[in-house]
Amino acid sequence: MKNFPAPARFVGIAALCLAATHASASDAAPESAVDLAQHGADPAWSIVEDLTTEIGPRMAGTEAEAAARRWAIARLQALGFANVREEQFDLPVWVRGEEQAWLTGPFQPQKLAVTALGNSASTGSKGIEGDIAYFESFDALAGASDAKVKGKIVFIDNQMKAAQDGSGYGYYGRGRFTGPNVAAKKGAIAIVIRSIGTDAHRNPHTGVTNFDPGVKPIPAGAISNPDADQLARQWKRAVAVTQPEPLHMKLVLTPQNLGTKHSGNVIAEVPGSDPAASPIIVACHLDSWDLGTGAIDDAAGCGIITAAAGHVMKAATPRRTIRILWAGAEEVGVFGGKAYFETHGKEKHAAALESDFGADRVWRIDFKLPDSAKPVADRIAAAVMPFGVVRGKQPAGGGADIGALVQAGVPAIDLQQDGTRYFDVHHTPDDTLDKIDPMQLRQNVTVWAATLAILANSTDDELP
Amino acid sequence: MKNFPAPARFVGIAALCLAATHASASDAAPESAVDLAQHGADPAWSIVEDLTTEIGPRMAGTEAEAAARRWAIARLQALGFANVREEQFDLPVWVRGEEQAWLTGPFQPQKLAVTALGNSASTGSKGIEGDIAYFESFDALAGASDAKVKGKIVFIDNQMKAAQDGSGYGYYGRGRFTGPNVAAKKGAIAIVIRSIGTDAHRNPHTGVTNFDPGVKPIPAGAISNPDADQLARQWKRAVAVTQPEPLHMKLVLTPQNLGTKHSGNVIAEVPGSDPAASPIIVACHLDSWDLGTGAIDDAAGCGIITAAAGHVMKAATPRRTIRILWAGAEEVGVFGGKAYFETHGKEKHAAALESDFGADRVWRIDFKLPDSAKPVADRIAAAVMPFGVVRGKQPAGGGADIGALVQAGVPAIDLQQDGTRYFDVHHTPDDTLDKIDPMQLRQNVTVWAATLAILANSTDDELP
Repeated sequence: MKNFPAPARFVGIAALCLAATHASASDAAPESAVDLAQHGADPAWSIVEDLTTEIGPRMAGTEAEAAARRWAIARLQALGFANVREEQFDLPVWVRGEEQAWLTGPFQPQKLAVTALGNSASTGSKGIEGDIAYFESFDALAGASDAKVKGKIVFIDNQMKAAQDGSGYGYYGRGRFTGPNVAAKKGAIAIVIRSIGTDAHRNPHTGVTNFDPGVKPIPAGAISNPDADQLARQWKRAVAVTQPEPLHMKLVLTPQNLGTKHSGNVIAEVPGSDPAASPIIVACHLDSWDLGTGAIDDAAGCGIITAAAGHVMKAATPRRTIRILWAGAEEVGVFGGKAYFETHGKEKHAAALESDFGADRVWRIDFKLPDSAKPVADRIAAAVMPFGVVRGKQPAGGGADIGALVQAGVPAIDLQQDGTRYFDVHHTPDDTLDKIDPMQLRQNVTVWAATLAILANSTDDELP
Repeated sequence: MKNFPAPARFVGIAALCLAATHASASDAAPESAVDLAQHGADPAWSIVEDLTTEIGPRMAGTEAEAAARRWAIARLQALGFANVREEQFDLPVWVRGEEQAWLTGPFQPQKLAVTALGNSASTGSKGIEGDIAYFESFDALAGASDAKVKGKIVFIDNQMKAAQDGSGYGYYGRGRFTGPNVAAKKGAIAIVIRSIGTDAHRNPHTGVTNFDPGVKPIPAGAISNPDADQLARQWKRAVAVTQPEPLHMKLVLTPQNLGTKHSGNVIAEVPGSDPAASPIIVACHLDSWDLGTGAIDDAAGCGIITAAAGHVMKAATPRRTIRILWAGAEEVGVFGGKAYFETHGKEKHAAALESDFGADRVWRIDFKLPDSAKPVADRIAAAVMPFGVVRGKQPAGGGADIGALVQAGVPAIDLQQDGTRYFDVHHTPDDTLDKIDPMQLRQNVTVWAATLAILANSTDDELP
């Protein structure tokens, strides 16, 4: 989808006028936020391009993430936001080391494209070798006897399928989220999974995994989809002969735990005209995995929410404050979101929204609002409809960094993005600027600007 | 293009009947080669799948290439070909080492996806650091003063564009073929080029480069297109400020020259019925670059020519012998093709053809035949037309491994394939089995079978 209907902005303006009854009056008729988002400068693109170019990868707790925070503070100040600040917190830091893997027999030895999962143990620099225990799926591993796993390198083969709503991530992702924990408990010496990704390139997908307390972490990696295809083909050939031979792997992963380090949330605000009104919080995350430059995950999200809030600010001072949260250390365990909740969880928030699903267009809006806010939801749904956004029938779920707030009862809205392409590059070296479609990025900003303008001008009868 | 016209095979049969006047008679009416290729077993796919799975990468002069030759001999014998043999030759062997690169300033340090070009010198394990000398194109480098290059790491930024006939390779490829030689002569300490490729993935494209005699090789690498975009963006930012700063790079490439090693050509034949008739030679290459499994380059070519020759053999003994050449050591300097010419160049060959451009469909046929062979060309053009193959107006050029034969006057036919996707994965880790479209692979085999059946039954009045 490359074009969005131009006349739509007039509908957006009408919706904003309906919503703006509580906005502070300005002498000249203000341009609407939607109009600015559609036709003004493009700060969303600038944020994504500049952050990914000048900082690049920004792994939680590293100097690169600290550099990104300094960059973020300077940028948010330059854009005219108020109360720009850093709120520091600590976290345990894990960093990648050497990463190599080979299929070593019974066929000609072949190198695989492998990457360690976050929290993987180290194999030591000499690596480990072992026979592969092949499982078609996470469920097959979970149901296997310890005897099938003990002393082996587990492989989970399930292949994630692309879906517009990205819903395969939860199902297939179990192989990464808890596969290593299950394999470790059954006595595996290591685990290698097929990447949780939908592409066919030799760039494996990383991501965090977690071991239960008391379970000793094992080396845990992901291989790319073409490498997993290769392993599966070799497996079938090795076991399909009269005298089956084990498939053999060598694995070298040398990640390190660096202990406790600092990270931080960067916060900025569009100050509302009514100091008694509770704020709207909008979140993205500033940290990224180390393999790519974190363009779709999540420079795009920061660009979208910040540009949208900026357009609202420029159009007319809203009644409620819009608080922008660029969370730190999301990828490795939502440390920034948790830290925000610890500091601010007891404050009243009118609503929470998050953008952390790339830069492709918003296609559905889901609400989880109190009954009193039905008129707000109706106004927003009407304002975003012209941009191709349909109203969902299921409640909004929030997102990682606003998760604790939403769990605590803060109203939420999800602007659901098209995730068909998202898991092609998610957590890979391929998460780079060229994967972002500027037209779809702009549609996000427009839809967000319309949503925020209405939300930030909602009444105290409508939202808490 | 996923479907090819089914009724076409009847036209193919008619053409074969016209051409088969010299074929040895068989008691039962033989299925035509085209019919077999369209509807029989699929040995082309098996060759590609088995070779890439069981052997994988097979760099010239290595044990992996020797294993591939053993595999090839066993497979060609199993397929029923005659005179299966290896013809050994020697070559100097270069192998890849460690490969890393970083943009180290003036921005936050960032790692690049880099690979060494064949014949690159080593930086030593500690690597080298230097300022980048940026050039938009090979021509810009060629025209630059030595002062602009001396002591620097040269970068050539030109971005290859996809074309159906792959013709951009010659133009843009100069940056790889001779860019390092030019940079070395001007005093550069190293060179890094934008990959000669048309994709947007962080898998750099390798390939051979050559230094003139007397020119001391320098370290020479390629970075992926997204990395080249990043370097170019940083370059523009670094020089666009009031006080321009140099863009700084660290480069570690530790390839080695291993001295003289063995390689070999694998040869097999479909024996013709007329021992006095000169043979048709069909070529592919068995070696591959080390980064991928050499599926499109050139397991596919070997699968295509071998399956086609097999179909001709199965349909009816042809008058002329078809000689199949799986050349060794093509990628690193066409050593196999040259060795074949040294051994067999003085023998008469009726015609030479090569398949070394992936597995996508044949769309044009070009001829370079003596005038006497016009009826042969007409019969072939009529036979392949129903499969979507148009007749070209330019002379066939041959290919790398038959290059010396064609230069010496052997008639040639080019079955030109669609190269639009070819340079997305050419010489990258992404050259893997999943990139091959089985339907298009089969169209190749069909077109080749029709062509070979007619060629191998041509008269001595038509071809030498």
